[in-house]
Amino acid sequence: MEAPSYLSEFHPSSRLLMGAGPSNFDPRVLEAMAAPMLGHLDPDFLRVMDDVRAMLREVFLTQNMLTLPVSGTGTAGMEAAVVNVVEPGDTIVVAANGYFCERLADIAQRAGAIVHQVVQPYGQPVDPDALRAEIKRHDKVKAVAMVHAETSTGVLTPIPEIAEMAHEAGALLIVDAVTSLGGMELRVDDWGIDVCYSGTQKCLACPPGLAPITMSDRAMDIMENRKTPVQSFYLDLSKLRKYWQQRAYHHTAPIIMIYALREALRLLLQEGLEARWTRHALNAEAMRVGLEAMGLKLFAKEGYRLPSLVAAVVPDGVDDAAGRKLLLQRHDTEISGGLGEQSGKLWRIGLMGHNSTPRNVLFVLSALEDVLLTQGYEVPVGASLAAAQRVLRDGYQAAG
Amino acid sequence: MEAPSYLSEFHPSSRLLMGAGPSNFDPRVLEAMAAPMLGHLDPDFLRVMDDVRAMLREVFLTQNMLTLPVSGTGTAGMEAAVVNVVEPGDTIVVAANGYFCERLADIAQRAGAIVHQVVQPYGQPVDPDALRAEIKRHDKVKAVAMVHAETSTGVLTPIPEIAEMAHEAGALLIVDAVTSLGGMELRVDDWGIDVCYSGTQKCLACPPGLAPITMSDRAMDIMENRKTPVQSFYLDLSKLRKYWQQRAYHHTAPIIMIYALREALRLLLQEGLEARWTRHALNAEAMRVGLEAMGLKLFAKEGYRLPSLVAAVVPDGVDDAAGRKLLLQRHDTEISGGLGEQSGKLWRIGLMGHNSTPRNVLFVLSALEDVLLTQGYEVPVGASLAAAQRVLRDGYQAAG
Repeated sequence: MEAPSYLSEFHPSSRLLMGAGPSNFDPRVLEAMAAPMLGHLDPDFLRVMDDVRAMLREVFLTQNMLTLPVSGTGTAGMEAAVVNVVEPGDTIVVAANGYFCERLADIAQRAGAIVHQVVQPYGQPVDPDALRAEIKRHDKVKAVAMVHAETSTGVLTPIPEIAEMAHEAGALLIVDAVTSLGGMELRVDDWGIDVCYSGTQKCLACPPGLAPITMSDRAMDIMENRKTPVQSFYLDLSKLRKYWQQRAYHHTAPIIMIYALREALRLLLQEGLEARWTRHALNAEAMRVGLEAMGLKLFAKEGYRLPSLVAAVVPDGVDDAAGRKLLLQRHDTEISGGLGEQSGKLWRIGLMGHNSTPRNVLFVLSALEDVLLTQGYEVPVGASLAAAQRVLRDGYQAAG
Repeated sequence: MEAPSYLSEFHPSSRLLMGAGPSNFDPRVLEAMAAPMLGHLDPDFLRVMDDVRAMLREVFLTQNMLTLPVSGTGTAGMEAAVVNVVEPGDTIVVAANGYFCERLADIAQRAGAIVHQVVQPYGQPVDPDALRAEIKRHDKVKAVAMVHAETSTGVLTPIPEIAEMAHEAGALLIVDAVTSLGGMELRVDDWGIDVCYSGTQKCLACPPGLAPITMSDRAMDIMENRKTPVQSFYLDLSKLRKYWQQRAYHHTAPIIMIYALREALRLLLQEGLEARWTRHALNAEAMRVGLEAMGLKLFAKEGYRLPSLVAAVVPDGVDDAAGRKLLLQRHDTEISGGLGEQSGKLWRIGLMGHNSTPRNVLFVLSALEDVLLTQGYEVPVGASLAAAQRVLRDGYQAAG
């Protein structure tokens, strides 16, 4: 009988994580995780909590008092965003154009809402006119929910116009910013977002395990005046707020993850929000022109492409899984395949946080050329690199 | 204007965590957390997931296929245990003898259950006769829920008799093992527990952030044949099971925490389950005789005292908060105060996992003598140490 594998030590491969997240993080984040363990009500830890709340407000560009990391991954943030404001029987309109919008709808249905989805095909942004028409069709819409940056397709949906139509109808706007926060322009207060959540393992460049969330006073009023209790104790934001603001015990925060998030946020603010947005935009543009020069088609509609994740169509004759496996085995590099209806059809390349660099753009393009050539797909060798280099040179020269 | 504190580096005090958890962990756990980051579907990470599932089954003493860590802290485990088997209108009987039993009842109510609590005063174990009578009062009880080791009071409630009465009534037994798993005898299969959950930051001696859970085939049948969907998507164990067993994407696991748990479980199994139970029992006994020799009263009823957490009554004339503050400031050591109705009245001393050692017993007793003397409370200096040493010597000699 073979000895169980858990008896042996664990030395994982050293991957470059260029998929849809998690992504690699700065060594400073690892150093922060090595700090001595503290109790969840230790005065030293309470200072860390205050630091994290203050920095999250800067990153979300909000003054919202209720701004904190939920002790779960991005999906826990999504669920917290929905179940705290939605009550059974409420009407919710979901702008649906990808896998994570569908998940939003599923979660709202489980919370007892009557959910209406305004569906766009994968790869397209939300259609504002169709959304407006759907909102108008109902007497009273409690909330409109949308995904800012669809991780499943690489599509960006602009927020301000949708915020306006939601507010005109007296509805709250819930925004999924899992793949946008820290990687592209997102202005919670200026744009009028009522509930916004994210995950730590994407553009914040931190390990997975926390879901930053922020809630406007308007949404908080609605939450505090519910007729029914929030279905989840663990995700009850009234209780989480009291723990984070007034130190009333609710649960034991994942201390080490909070250390990691504190350092990841410091790195972000030291770089500067706008500088980081510019960096993500430039590297994504270089990746896109490189992929196109290689002969690949981009999946997301032009003008609505994410700076944090580039989705390309797997060319005819190339096997998605075999290609990603080769990339993993030969180059120790992960990219993601498609999700849901696009399973097997897309390659999703993340350029997030610490990993959004010219070095990674040039390396991944070169490695993809190798993978495609190995699979017998003809690429004009070096063309992708030349195209990407040009964009990067221009960008860095423009930035001085 | 003062510069915000998050601009500075963070170097927390180096605490000895002798409270109700989190507790300190072995340096090997920290080393494990420094392993390279992996994607949540990386083949290397899938092996880690399999290792963790296999080791959790050994620690829970179960063959249950559905055994995995939920991506949240102990309270997320509690909520997952309840919401997956409970449907609106179900009758649930909660054996209530402390703060966390009350939380169980709260969570079941939020899930739409009709909850009947059989209340014992804090400090007492559950009364089996009262519980049996309550169960018999109802036509159909869906589940009986209890806390094995009440963290709020240091009280142990034996499981087998309660399991038997639950099953006789056709009810499931849900057991909170947050402060027992890995620190005292707990036999999921032999005792007939249907759903059992824990947290990582207590006797498993790992950072907080995960909630191991296991579910019997009987409970799984009930879950798979629900009439209504599980209210939580994030905690839906049918989906989590498919992610952990069949690699179907559900959420991004907190990779680094899973690394930590893998190493903490290896440490546990390398020591041996029974050896660890014996170690916890011996050190707690030494702590108890020491506290009594110091003149303190133990809170939990004799015969029902936990090996992982000792609760002592704060003596008259001694200020709870001031005492704990002095211990923290002068000795860099954390113990916990009372919770709920016992707030201000108890000191709760954890002896969990890595921290359940003779060294910590002797040091904490000595530091407590110092704290009490500083507050003007007369203690027979050294008596607590002499009493504890005797127990420890006898115990180690008996063990060879």
